[in-house]
Amino acid sequence: MKSLGGKSVFCRFGNLKTIRRLEKSVSKAKKTRAANLLDRLTGMTVALATPLDERGRVHMKDLRKLVDRALAGGAAGFLALGWCGEQPLLMDADRRLVLETIVEETNGRIPVIAGVSEQSLPRALAQAKMARAVGADLILSTPPYSYPLGAALLAEYFARLAGESRMGLIVYNNHEVGVHVDLELAARLAKTDGVVGIKDTSTMSMLQRLLSLFHRPGRFIILSGDEYHLGPGLLVGVTHTTMGGPGNLCPWWCSDIHLAARQNRWADVAAGHRRLVQFCDALYALGPSPYAIVKVALSVLGYGSGLSTPPLPAPTAAQRKAVARLLKKFPDVVPQA
Amino acid sequence: MKSLGGKSVFCRFGNLKTIRRLEKSVSKAKKTRAANLLDRLTGMTVALATPLDERGRVHMKDLRKLVDRALAGGAAGFLALGWCGEQPLLMDADRRLVLETIVEETNGRIPVIAGVSEQSLPRALAQAKMARAVGADLILSTPPYSYPLGAALLAEYFARLAGESRMGLIVYNNHEVGVHVDLELAARLAKTDGVVGIKDTSTMSMLQRLLSLFHRPGRFIILSGDEYHLGPGLLVGVTHTTMGGPGNLCPWWCSDIHLAARQNRWADVAAGHRRLVQFCDALYALGPSPYAIVKVALSVLGYGSGLSTPPLPAPTAAQRKAVARLLKKFPDVVPQA
Amino acid sequence: MKSLGGKSVFCRFGNLKTIRRLEKSVSKAKKTRAANLLDRLTGMTVALATPLDERGRVHMKDLRKLVDRALAGGAAGFLALGWCGEQPLLMDADRRLVLETIVEETNGRIPVIAGVSEQSLPRALAQAKMARAVGADLILSTPPYSYPLGAALLAEYFARLAGESRMGLIVYNNHEVGVHVDLELAARLAKTDGVVGIKDTSTMSMLQRLLSLFHRPGRFIILSGDEYHLGPGLLVGVTHTTMGGPGNLCPWWCSDIHLAARQNRWADVAAGHRRLVQFCDALYALGPSPYAIVKVALSVLGYGSGLSTPPLPAPTAAQRKAVARLLKKFPDVVPQA
Amino acid sequence: MKSLGGKSVFCRFGNLKTIRRLEKSVSKAKKTRAANLLDRLTGMTVALATPLDERGRVHMKDLRKLVDRALAGGAAGFLALGWCGEQPLLMDADRRLVLETIVEETNGRIPVIAGVSEQSLPRALAQAKMARAVGADLILSTPPYSYPLGAALLAEYFARLAGESRMGLIVYNNHEVGVHVDLELAARLAKTDGVVGIKDTSTMSMLQRLLSLFHRPGRFIILSGDEYHLGPGLLVGVTHTTMGGPGNLCPWWCSDIHLAARQNRWADVAAGHRRLVQFCDALYALGPSPYAIVKVALSVLGYGSGLSTPPLPAPTAAQRKAVARLLKKFPDVVPQA
Repeated sequence: MKSLGGKSVFCRFGNLKTIRRLEKSVSKAKKTRAANLLDRLTGMTVALATPLDERGRVHMKDLRKLVDRALAGGAAGFLALGWCGEQPLLMDADRRLVLETIVEETNGRIPVIAGVSEQSLPRALAQAKMARAVGADLILSTPPYSYPLGAALLAEYFARLAGESRMGLIVYNNHEVGVHVDLELAARLAKTDGVVGIKDTSTMSMLQRLLSLFHRPGRFIILSGDEYHLGPGLLVGVTHTTMGGPGNLCPWWCSDIHLAARQNRWADVAAGHRRLVQFCDALYALGPSPYAIVKVALSVLGYGSGLSTPPLPAPTAAQRKAVARLLKKFPDVVPQA
Repeated sequence: MKSLGGKSVFCRFGNLKTIRRLEKSVSKAKKTRAANLLDRLTGMTVALATPLDERGRVHMKDLRKLVDRALAGGAAGFLALGWCGEQPLLMDADRRLVLETIVEETNGRIPVIAGVSEQSLPRALAQAKMARAVGADLILSTPPYSYPLGAALLAEYFARLAGESRMGLIVYNNHEVGVHVDLELAARLAKTDGVVGIKDTSTMSMLQRLLSLFHRPGRFIILSGDEYHLGPGLLVGVTHTTMGGPGNLCPWWCSDIHLAARQNRWADVAAGHRRLVQFCDALYALGPSPYAIVKVALSVLGYGSGLSTPPLPAPTAAQRKAVARLLKKFPDVVPQA
Repeated sequence: MKSLGGKSVFCRFGNLKTIRRLEKSVSKAKKTRAANLLDRLTGMTVALATPLDERGRVHMKDLRKLVDRALAGGAAGFLALGWCGEQPLLMDADRRLVLETIVEETNGRIPVIAGVSEQSLPRALAQAKMARAVGADLILSTPPYSYPLGAALLAEYFARLAGESRMGLIVYNNHEVGVHVDLELAARLAKTDGVVGIKDTSTMSMLQRLLSLFHRPGRFIILSGDEYHLGPGLLVGVTHTTMGGPGNLCPWWCSDIHLAARQNRWADVAAGHRRLVQFCDALYALGPSPYAIVKVALSVLGYGSGLSTPPLPAPTAAQRKAVARLLKKFPDVVPQA
Repeated sequence: MKSLGGKSVFCRFGNLKTIRRLEKSVSKAKKTRAANLLDRLTGMTVALATPLDERGRVHMKDLRKLVDRALAGGAAGFLALGWCGEQPLLMDADRRLVLETIVEETNGRIPVIAGVSEQSLPRALAQAKMARAVGADLILSTPPYSYPLGAALLAEYFARLAGESRMGLIVYNNHEVGVHVDLELAARLAKTDGVVGIKDTSTMSMLQRLLSLFHRPGRFIILSGDEYHLGPGLLVGVTHTTMGGPGNLCPWWCSDIHLAARQNRWADVAAGHRRLVQFCDALYALGPSPYAIVKVALSVLGYGSGLSTPPLPAPTAAQRKAVARLLKKFPDVVPQA
């Protein structure tokens, strides 16, 4: 089958009339209780990592410290229990513990989004119920990805998840799980009560189409979630991002880039982004999983033991040293006390 | 991206020497406590569906009846909590309930394999621990499929899952989850303590290579899990199958085909398989998900309400009627009281 | 991206009515001048390899010998210029030379199908015109695979190729080129004037659906083209195959398997197929490309130099030796003078 | 199989040492006769469309006019016979005609790159020989994409194509053909004599890694080839682009964006890019193939009949009107006489 890149997505919409109709349906139909929340999320939402101790348990104290670090670093929102936070890997009890801790430590200063991705509606609703009980502001969910499902079933899934949880829902178009939100599904989501946005980590062309077709401030937001799309995304009009690795490791650097974009200092955006990519390329090359190597770097900075939940790999001693050496080469990006 | 079909898998092994070495490593190294179990599984393992009542709860009574039906129909083993049993969709408590009921009703007459597919080692181990406590004989697991993982991490995952659960493990190469067990990983699994087999639903050429390279009676088994591969699989030497839809709906028909193969009545295998495929083609065409439509057919036969766990679709009235009409056209395949 | 395997193709057809309608449209609508040709093709069509000399030129004499060998081995038809014949790789002049030689040597004893796969209609029509001029009986073509094209454009492509060439056309569903013929497109093709069949090398489940929905003797044929599907295909009702590597190397063995199936000697089909797969597995493991290693084996048997057209790899001395050794272990399958 | 997006490509390189070694090998080893050409290509290379007349023949006069338009619009180079120029679709004689015309009309003012993508080395070398005879400066080629080939065979292919053609070769990583150049293959190419660059239309993260690892001015260039990556690419450091649709339709607009980037007027880059994407989104939505719809727009502007080579679709009357209307809404982007 041909790749999803570039041109082929055009097959998804029939003609200009369709686009126009879709645009109208967004701007008119959507009335969301979440408008204020969506505005507050302008800027960088940090997808918080979950620090673990030497025995693989949630390291509550370091998690609180990490929350404070990200707040100091300019986070506009938190995504708890995202992919970077190992939601799919954590035990249910740990998911609750993590979310509680983050909500408590944040204490309402910025909105908290809770990841509730699961393989069925009852399982996702259980997570959403927990998130609601604990005090999260919004939920975020990928499509379920265990069974082949057509777009109609996915649309119904998200409508029910938003409706029955009575929580504002951000749909996560995460290419790593192998089920894709295409433009037609996105159009349906933009009209669905309770669905308030889409987080995208697919391609720059998809991101640009999502933005122009569906992003409406205060009504429906597109969040860009790939650090390699940070500067490029801002250039094409992104106003909301989620940052995983960099959001945890170098929130100041990332929020400076956001600020530069808002102030039209694009040369600074370019320079900041290129330096960030240099750092990420070098860091991610140090291990088989970028998720795991970010945990190692956080450990070097004093947050957690460096462990991730298996099957994500445990760090070797050599990796720890290499990561420590690398961080010293990027004191501008990742300041150490 | 190029297809996985046919030729490209050859890139996976270097040369004839490698193959020979792999073969030896299987036949020599594997010592399993599970030998007797593996022999008893010769024939059809029924991947039991999970009947739900009108409110979506597990229908215990109908589940027991379904167990009895499959036993009467010649099942050599049960797979509880497989894809057909909606394991990825069920709440944890329901998973336990289902497995307990099946183990209890089976009462040791045939081995029970428990599906424990999850996204991380702690989560899968919790399921395996439950399975052990409840009395399952073996466990079965896909690779975790939330994060990109290389073959080395997958090999380690399965080794730890088998080792730490102290339960014989069958690895499920399920193409629907988008993570594939290739021949190199299969070779490592065949040498891993506690891993006792691979269930495959990928391609006929992969199935044939798995069989010739790794199937060793009493030591390591290849189970063919696609109903469209039933007759063809037996022809190429398969001795162990798992049957989902047909195993639940028409176990007699399926076990007759197995028997015909064992008795070298291949014309009967051919005729039986072709008729089965005719039935499956017609049935699966009646709805968007074959998993869901099997539940509807079971409901017509008196097992459960026809509901599946969302996002699998609920049946429409028209679908129920169409399924009922269809079953009447296949009284030979699916006898009704 | 989710796999193409198993279940997902069901999404392609809506309901039983659609299937019925498709079936009728085939059995009624199709009137083909090619009926007699299609009947004569019952059995094995050998996809002839193109022997090259030491300098990479077509080895005319050995090509004639190979034709004679396959005729002696029971070929019911020839596919010249298929993937095994390196059509996509050969210069235009060599394509003509190869086809002329095969047609001349065959001398009408069995039908000759000419591969005309190209990236555009004018280019394919030029090949079809050549094939017609040279005396081929039918043409065979994959979809063009350079640009993303929807099903409607593919349907129009094949309709025009058959119509404007005025040659009976077999459509080749070749998964290796990354563009797939799905059931809906197959249904349109089955109703298209001049399209007389589909060759399939995709999956066993697709093959079985193509057979039951569209195979109508004398009107529209399904040819199974994967050697790993030979015995399994016959079991599920295949009557027409194309054989590449095995068709060239061991036509007797393959036609014996066909004969056994026609005579309902299924134990012989099973034994013959399993032995063939043993041979193919061992042979294809000797190099990075099964296409190239078949050429080496043909060279050992006295046909050509063992070279393939680059980028297919040239054989190493070690490979030649290994292939020669291997052939000696399979004297039953591949007899040597 | 998991998507190619984001993280998974990191699996391709082992560790930081490998990256460093690769970087050195580029900057030291590469000595190219093409250095001056590469410098002259800084900016926008227009991938010229091939205007056809009402009967599908090359429209020589309009092709010359299109060359002049692009030159006036600030083209730094031409790519003749690329995907936008329908090279895979044109007859060999037309390929020559097109290239001759472009070279003649260009008359040495800017470099001309000739697309020579083919399915085998002899076929590609024939195209390269023609390109050399006609006076092209460089050649560009995708991997062959008819047979499954590993990275080693692809590396050898490009080395021989560059070596035996004695023409500077740019390798085209075109995701639409389903064969991908990964970072390891890119590293080998960067060290291969005669290979002078890579054109990429894959993903933003791949583009950024190619840039940082292999782009060395005057030695080895990375060309970004997706219009949706224009502004974003410049922001991350791209200096060389190829532009297909926009390069033909609105070269002034595109070269203004390039100029703005060189002058660090990033707000202008952002505004120009966003407006361009608005135009492209609207245009490409008017038909099933963006390649074909660009031809229609060119026809409205007075270049050619609007036809593309089949299987690319012919325009309907409604499409022609819709395109004409659309162009009137973007007089800033696409000025009309």
